Amino acid sequence: MEKGIIAFDLEALNQFETLVAESGFSKIFFLVDSNTHENCLIPLVENLPSLEDFEILEVDPGEENKSAEVLFHLWSALSELKADRFSLVVNVGGGMITDLGGFLASTYMRGISFVNFPTSVLAQVDASVGGKTGINLDHKKNRIGVFQEPLATFIINDFLDTLPLIERKSGFAEMLKHALIADPSYWNELVNFKIEEQSPSTRLIQRSVEIKSEIVKLDFKENGKRKVLNFGHTVGHALESAALDQGEHLPHGYAVAYGMIAEVLLSAKYEGLSDSEMNDIVAHLLLRYNEFPLHGSPEVWIELMRSDKKNVKGEFRFSLIKKIGEPSYDVAVTDNDILSALQYLVSNE
Amino acid sequence: MEKGIIAFDLEALNQFETLVAESGFSKIFFLVDSNTHENCLIPLVENLPSLEDFEILEVDPGEENKSAEVLFHLWSALSELKADRFSLVVNVGGGMITDLGGFLASTYMRGISFVNFPTSVLAQVDASVGGKTGINLDHKKNRIGVFQEPLATFIINDFLDTLPLIERKSGFAEMLKHALIADPSYWNELVNFKIEEQSPSTRLIQRSVEIKSEIVKLDFKENGKRKVLNFGHTVGHALESAALDQGEHLPHGYAVAYGMIAEVLLSAKYEGLSDSEMNDIVAHLLLRYNEFPLHGSPEVWIELMRSDKKNVKGEFRFSLIKKIGEPSYDVAVTDNDILSALQYLVSNE
Repeated sequence: MEKGIIAFDLEALNQFETLVAESGFSKIFFLVDSNTHENCLIPLVENLPSLEDFEILEVDPGEENKSAEVLFHLWSALSELKADRFSLVVNVGGGMITDLGGFLASTYMRGISFVNFPTSVLAQVDASVGGKTGINLDHKKNRIGVFQEPLATFIINDFLDTLPLIERKSGFAEMLKHALIADPSYWNELVNFKIEEQSPSTRLIQRSVEIKSEIVKLDFKENGKRKVLNFGHTVGHALESAALDQGEHLPHGYAVAYGMIAEVLLSAKYEGLSDSEMNDIVAHLLLRYNEFPLHGSPEVWIELMRSDKKNVKGEFRFSLIKKIGEPSYDVAVTDNDILSALQYLVSNE
Repeated sequence: MEKGIIAFDLEALNQFETLVAESGFSKIFFLVDSNTHENCLIPLVENLPSLEDFEILEVDPGEENKSAEVLFHLWSALSELKADRFSLVVNVGGGMITDLGGFLASTYMRGISFVNFPTSVLAQVDASVGGKTGINLDHKKNRIGVFQEPLATFIINDFLDTLPLIERKSGFAEMLKHALIADPSYWNELVNFKIEEQSPSTRLIQRSVEIKSEIVKLDFKENGKRKVLNFGHTVGHALESAALDQGEHLPHGYAVAYGMIAEVLLSAKYEGLSDSEMNDIVAHLLLRYNEFPLHGSPEVWIELMRSDKKNVKGEFRFSLIKKIGEPSYDVAVTDNDILSALQYLVSNE
């Protein structure tokens, strides 16, 4: 099988069965959290009658468990269960599981094979593509990790029906981001989609996966063009970290939605985004995502942003948009303009 | 500068200065242990007058500190000292430091640049080439890691004069291994070299580096030919692990020397190595390396070998030699023959 394949629904089940039948893995390890164990792994295994021998590694759900402590525990678990170089790790879960499990597999015995079954909207459209793996460190998101593509990604739409609404909306924010940086007609379609009432279809998920794949293909290690995928994320990550620092949880997509609002204001100021597009985007994001309180303050957020991986020697570099569908990156932005954009978030909370 | 360059002595100092002057790293972090801090880093910095700003990360010496706990501590230290994607890690030490620091750099922010100044014979001829990085886990050597080449390797012969004799001899065992798998005339030269009285010259170190580089170039990820470098290591690692399990230390090269003795016996049985070469090699290795007691027993060692990364589904695969200079790999060997070879070690202890 070609590495890096992405398959959907029934085709995904068939391809996974073929992979297991043909590759002769010495052992299969499913990595799940307690939610995806129940809601996804059990139905998955029922649909894979040929799958016989496997181990299950279960971790507690939640971003706070994408940690060095949990990673160490999993390294030891693989070692004790005699995983060898021909073992396969199968990650079944949201981005927390696919990031953690990808890093686990990529560092065990200097790298063993892994595949992902992303189970959340966010993981299906974002974490599933691009080979970013890793863990958080001292409340810094993804501070530790490697680039390593999974052998394959299997996307099962049915899993999305088990998600709480907040998680579905959280992932939808990344789909909106894909539209904003790449495709105006996709943006119009998503703006009219009632995510509050239904899961995104396989077709919509597939469009986001396509957009992300095309960008990643051009620049796997994120030295250039791939940075456009960070739109909304410089501010978004700071909002997430500030919440974490106070022991609170701001869902990733909500943080990115707020981040996109601030970065749309910067896009108007620096990249010529029109007032009408700016107003439309801000209005839509506020309407959908204005449900969580923000923690910290503009001053706190800007300090958190200083340690962002994307900056160069302490200077801020943003990924912005010129208009819907036209992204830019490495835009140097002043502290004052960032603070104004962040103050707008506070005033609209 | 071309990636993966290896430079020696004065040329190494010049190249390092050029690299630092031209690459514009945001920050430089030296990783040392307390021995190499004193014996190597201080003289190194004195010889690099243009080097101004840098941080020093110091860990305790010893293989037991190539651990997850120390790694975790170093991840946090880099993060607290605001290392960013444009920082450089400079590993100054033996294989413990270059393995640990290479893994540290390769996983911080999904990989930042690093260079190695290997300071022991072992690190100069072995750890310096081939991109293996990692840590030990639960007494399993290098259980966790990634393949990642340093930006450059700088080999300073003077550092070898600061080594205790045991460490010098330990590294010399890997040079003997290079000779046995690749070059009969190099073997003859080394057999007559008085390692007890002097450090190996740059020329000898260079020959070992050449042999290793040529093999690694053919098969970076060790799916085939590179396995010949494991000669002596399947048994050697088990002897090392058994010592560690009892809280004892058997220097790596001594373990490999004992390992080569056992594997030379297997080479005679399986690969047609002549009795006269077998006897010469065994006699020479016993003469030089028979100074440490072994810990554990053949039964314990064979169990440790079962979890070796090189095995396939629990079957033993050895890297052996057909004659001096002609290696083989993936040779399936029976438990009984391994036990006989291991018993020979006990009888000659």
